[in-house]
Amino acid sequence: VHTVKAKVAYRGDAFSGFARQPDQATVQGSIEQALELLYQRPVETTCAGRTDAGVHARGQVISFDLSNDERGVRGLPTLERSLNALIDDHIAVSELVEVSEGFSARFDAKAREYRYFIYPGKTRPVLCHDLVWHVKKELDVQAMEEAASYLIGEHDFKSFCLAASAVGKPTCRRVHEISFKTEQLMGEDVLVIIVIGNAFLHSMVRTIVGTLVEVGVGRREPAWVQQVLEARDRSAAGENAPACGLVFWQVFYE
Amino acid sequence: VHTVKAKVAYRGDAFSGFARQPDQATVQGSIEQALELLYQRPVETTCAGRTDAGVHARGQVISFDLSNDERGVRGLPTLERSLNALIDDHIAVSELVEVSEGFSARFDAKAREYRYFIYPGKTRPVLCHDLVWHVKKELDVQAMEEAASYLIGEHDFKSFCLAASAVGKPTCRRVHEISFKTEQLMGEDVLVIIVIGNAFLHSMVRTIVGTLVEVGVGRREPAWVQQVLEARDRSAAGENAPACGLVFWQVFYE
Repeated sequence: VHTVKAKVAYRGDAFSGFARQPDQATVQGSIEQALELLYQRPVETTCAGRTDAGVHARGQVISFDLSNDERGVRGLPTLERSLNALIDDHIAVSELVEVSEGFSARFDAKAREYRYFIYPGKTRPVLCHDLVWHVKKELDVQAMEEAASYLIGEHDFKSFCLAASAVGKPTCRRVHEISFKTEQLMGEDVLVIIVIGNAFLHSMVRTIVGTLVEVGVGRREPAWVQQVLEARDRSAAGENAPACGLVFWQVFYE
Repeated sequence: VHTVKAKVAYRGDAFSGFARQPDQATVQGSIEQALELLYQRPVETTCAGRTDAGVHARGQVISFDLSNDERGVRGLPTLERSLNALIDDHIAVSELVEVSEGFSARFDAKAREYRYFIYPGKTRPVLCHDLVWHVKKELDVQAMEEAASYLIGEHDFKSFCLAASAVGKPTCRRVHEISFKTEQLMGEDVLVIIVIGNAFLHSMVRTIVGTLVEVGVGRREPAWVQQVLEARDRSAAGENAPACGLVFWQVFYE
């Protein structure tokens, strides 16, 4: 068996999320359909992290297995070209490499990085509206940084997990970093929130961002985030930030 | 009479160009419809430069006149909010200011700046595909810079003008600057070509970019651009670069 690893970028707004679902346009569905066409059998893919409908990816990672025969049929550069020709236009597959047998994009991932893009200010960000959350108020980034500091380290993030997904499941995760930077996107200043952790619960990054923005606009004090964590209850946290501002940026392996 | 000047940003892919046309979604049409609703009479707007279907704008400028009464009805901040509420979501109006009577966004403009975004490389730029031209080959930027140098200054740009638009019209223009820089757009390197001139002919920037890319991919030598200029014939130049990569960036006034 030969295990192949690949980087996958996609526009979230073109799909009902990453994970394959019957009768829905999904990223996994499109890739697996193309692989099935190429190898004339169902090929299952594993991803580093499922993303919800509307969430973008720049550096999602997938892995899948090919038999000796299949691996021999075409080289990886050819497979990459064929895949990109067959999959949906809003997906791009790149950096195909053969990795050690049994490698899993999911279980071998050491850390995952998400970036969230916020456009603050009153004017509509028409050029990049589908890549940012337009928060119409000024943000106190220093207060957001202080609020974020409560989330660094290993915690029970149950308050930051979609309630239905937290039932009967472990909700401890380790957040390595939450950092903030301002960068230009098509000539406008956007606030980028970089979140790195070992793994993330369902909608965790969007809930973290929504909660930090509550502090940023001045509706809450930074220390409130500590109470949110301790509540272990999704209703204690802020609203989910919109999917369109979130990008699954990269995955770290050994 | 009170003359108002405003900055206008828009997504080109949502419109059949800037200029009002019957039964078509246009930027001017949407703004003038909103103004008519607010003032209960047709209000004509003048723009710094008409853009074609698909071309984006960050800093288009418009001007229009209001009577004493109309100017008194609502302040400019209120007008700005009302306009943005009424116009198409893919347009944003900002920086409304009253200027000296008779000011024209078109005739008082001293220079115009366009930026063209190219994504070079083989992987599809899925996150910003609607803001860039995906040129799948490597570009020799140094050769493009040399090619661009032939275009600086005052020239007859007839070869760079949509043929039908050049008939019987003056085609001399002055290009002040064509510069190149690489910047990050959603984590990917893009080549930005900045073109500044006193005024531009129909599709002139896109023809300049298409011609420079001919040189960049190695199909032509930089000195070929001199021949293109001298031909005074649109068919001598390169193809029009796609509209989606072009942004009307800003307008300079006294």
